[in-house]
Amino acid sequence: MLKAIKIVLVGTSHPGNIGGVARAMKNMGLAELCLVAPRAQFPHHEAVLRSVGATDILDNAKIYDCLEDAVADCTLVAGSSARSRHLPWPLLNPRQLAERLEQELTHSEHRIALVFGREDRGLSNEELHLCHLHVHIPCNPDFSSLNLAAAVQVLTYELRMAVLAAEEKQTPSKTLPFGTEWDTPFANGETLEHFFNHLERTLIDINFHNPDNPRLLMSRLRRLYMRARPDTIEMNMLRGILTLTQQAANKNAATKPPESN
Amino acid sequence: MLKAIKIVLVGTSHPGNIGGVARAMKNMGLAELCLVAPRAQFPHHEAVLRSVGATDILDNAKIYDCLEDAVADCTLVAGSSARSRHLPWPLLNPRQLAERLEQELTHSEHRIALVFGREDRGLSNEELHLCHLHVHIPCNPDFSSLNLAAAVQVLTYELRMAVLAAEEKQTPSKTLPFGTEWDTPFANGETLEHFFNHLERTLIDINFHNPDNPRLLMSRLRRLYMRARPDTIEMNMLRGILTLTQQAANKNAATKPPESN
Repeated sequence: MLKAIKIVLVGTSHPGNIGGVARAMKNMGLAELCLVAPRAQFPHHEAVLRSVGATDILDNAKIYDCLEDAVADCTLVAGSSARSRHLPWPLLNPRQLAERLEQELTHSEHRIALVFGREDRGLSNEELHLCHLHVHIPCNPDFSSLNLAAAVQVLTYELRMAVLAAEEKQTPSKTLPFGTEWDTPFANGETLEHFFNHLERTLIDINFHNPDNPRLLMSRLRRLYMRARPDTIEMNMLRGILTLTQQAANKNAATKPPESN
Repeated sequence: MLKAIKIVLVGTSHPGNIGGVARAMKNMGLAELCLVAPRAQFPHHEAVLRSVGATDILDNAKIYDCLEDAVADCTLVAGSSARSRHLPWPLLNPRQLAERLEQELTHSEHRIALVFGREDRGLSNEELHLCHLHVHIPCNPDFSSLNLAAAVQVLTYELRMAVLAAEEKQTPSKTLPFGTEWDTPFANGETLEHFFNHLERTLIDINFHNPDNPRLLMSRLRRLYMRARPDTIEMNMLRGILTLTQQAANKNAATKPPESN
């Protein structure tokens, strides 16, 4: 199960921290590291130094320009967050996340991303909104700045504990999300982004959404659907509904150019 | 309860690691650090640097010549150990240790020491035999060298989780769906049923849904939205979208009677 989990570091400043993360990952049996726009050059000798032998993870690290690309193949994206922001999002602690691991990986195509933000200011709101849920390590509120590698260590430790417990069980009784074996794989990040784009265009077409005065509309809708974890059949249904809604709207405004995705 | 726990570092080589341990401790709400025969001079600027503001813990650290003195006032001594040695000793993982915390601290005089050995070769057999039990972090067996601060981070995280759980037990349990106080009440059953009725009528209006051949459409949509637990603001948004979708559709089919709910 640990092979289906990738660690994504966004905008990391210090290459040493990337090395520390690689070491923490390898300690806990994870292998896949993604770097989104690291601020120093990479590869970097300080990363190698701090990795203390986890250089295979550094050598195989993938580099992306934006978080959206890094999580495009993931069915669950969990973002590390110091606190719930102005728009509350599903918030778990590392243990609660680990408890969901087994049910999240019932399909062989399912993949999980754990996303960690910049050392100084974490993830942006846009990046946090790419996540299905947020994970918060319940630190001392008076001293909550956790070292990046330490945060990865705690999260991956919890996941490893969950995997070891699952292996130990080795009995067929595995508690699944809603009392049933899910019938269809979850939509991945790319599919979700296409859906949200299509949704936004449709809401403009029916005059529900004004992009010049967006308020929290798209954020709220994103939170709603991310929470539901749509599977691929559901996603197809919702896309079909949007397409027919657009057809209905655009017959009324025949001057509008047709839009597709 | 965390005040009754001290971290004891034996023969630490790198002052930076002592600083990293102080930071990890403070993150998790611990305060008492003991150093047994540190190999570099102490205080040390590298320790201050790595502590990133946990200097109060460094300033109050106590220094001992031998482990026996450092744990003289402790009622439970747990030693971090890579493996059980030739003479098997009670061996727990960090979670199992944390589960014992409450019962260990039933008396106000009880004190717990968590003992961590040298970076290169851990605790000696004599030191391990000063411990009531040994704690082992279940690492990847092929890459088990854990950074000292990372090991302290994992252990103290487990203890903090146990303390938070114990505190929560004493206060009336408010199990919230996503680990955070939601900003808006959830929609009730009546509101949800109105929504599903409205949704079905709208899907008929846009020719997505044929009630004579319903297949699983409405069941699937119901499952999706029930899973998301919409709140009342979200529900109003979705109803607004449906209303504008119906307006778009019904302009195209002006013969249809208007429907409302």
